[in-house]
Amino acid sequence: MKRYALIVAGGSGTRMGGSTPKQFLVLGQRPLLMHTISQFASAGNSIEIIVVLPQNQIEIWTSLCSYHQFVIEHKLVAGGKTRFESVRNGLEWVEADSLVAIHDGVRPLISTTIIEESFRIAKEKGSAIAAVSLKDSIREMVGDSTVSKNRNNYFLVQTPQTFQSTMIKKYYGLAKSKESFTDDASVYEFFGENVTLIQGDYKNLKITTPEDLIIAQALLNNNT
Amino acid sequence: MKRYALIVAGGSGTRMGGSTPKQFLVLGQRPLLMHTISQFASAGNSIEIIVVLPQNQIEIWTSLCSYHQFVIEHKLVAGGKTRFESVRNGLEWVEADSLVAIHDGVRPLISTTIIEESFRIAKEKGSAIAAVSLKDSIREMVGDSTVSKNRNNYFLVQTPQTFQSTMIKKYYGLAKSKESFTDDASVYEFFGENVTLIQGDYKNLKITTPEDLIIAQALLNNNT
Repeated sequence: MKRYALIVAGGSGTRMGGSTPKQFLVLGQRPLLMHTISQFASAGNSIEIIVVLPQNQIEIWTSLCSYHQFVIEHKLVAGGKTRFESVRNGLEWVEADSLVAIHDGVRPLISTTIIEESFRIAKEKGSAIAAVSLKDSIREMVGDSTVSKNRNNYFLVQTPQTFQSTMIKKYYGLAKSKESFTDDASVYEFFGENVTLIQGDYKNLKITTPEDLIIAQALLNNNT
Repeated sequence: MKRYALIVAGGSGTRMGGSTPKQFLVLGQRPLLMHTISQFASAGNSIEIIVVLPQNQIEIWTSLCSYHQFVIEHKLVAGGKTRFESVRNGLEWVEADSLVAIHDGVRPLISTTIIEESFRIAKEKGSAIAAVSLKDSIREMVGDSTVSKNRNNYFLVQTPQTFQSTMIKKYYGLAKSKESFTDDASVYEFFGENVTLIQGDYKNLKITTPEDLIIAQALLNNNT
């Protein structure tokens, strides 16, 4: 079965307080999106890589690839206004009857082990969603106050979220982007499917704040 | 109002894969419990500090304090078999009609700002529980599968959990340790109280894995 990585990098960088889009922030001497792409390239030479970027970042990205002599092959697709639209645009380039791992561009520390496992499980079960259990206690808002919940019943969802392409393409085609989907798993679920969770990794963090970049750098230094 | 910090450090270190109790792991050249205590000492010179340690670690700790010339005054109390019992033992040394911030010994990066805020709010509202919103999507286990939930309705709970001492002492006295309380807020809530959340901090992490120590060191280096 053909395997795709659909790497979505639509962030404009405003939450980082800077003007550099998050995916272009430098980690270990190169833009973190290059780390993300490299992990999928390392996970298996048969993964076809699609990167979705905002239209106005494609030229910068091409220059960055040239400057950093980044030669891993990947198809560039222009994103939409929302993450949902960006994923949908990317899925148009994914063939039916294949597998597609949808992944946040700003999760550069994804392990090749999890990538491989997500394809393996999605092939068997239809989907494979990386998730981790909670380390802290959790409370749920109920009316004006909050109540303690059993943390063992909850999972924090990461990416990759890997699917059999025929199904996820169909559901993204049917769904309206106005529905507030928080991730790809919830699109899949919206059409009556149950998703399969696989073990994610606390190191697989999503870089959204300056502290995250410091943490990612420390974890990266420790790995190499 | 008199203010106490009740710092609970009961860990044996097994989850770190080593034999050093987590609270004695070295961060920035000294045991991380010293960082935790220092933060409460820096937050206000009127905070009386109580540290709960397993009985068999008290002698080592005293030696460590001597070796590191750690002179911040604190009362040592022997812990119990569970975190619940350790907190209860510590609360015996807290006067009524005061305020007490109960804090995990292995959260060394707590800011003095949050400490001060927790006392301020607990004085006014009865309790102040540090918590952060979720960065990732969340799923809840329902039967054999999971369903996507709105992450805006959930909070991850940290410490300090600060209370008016008369109430929390009473509830810890009434509660049976066999009830599975995950934190102090849930003890308080069990007796019909609503807790008040305050803004915690992603940097205020609980050190439970080797990666957490790497992350804490990176965040500490960045602060200094």
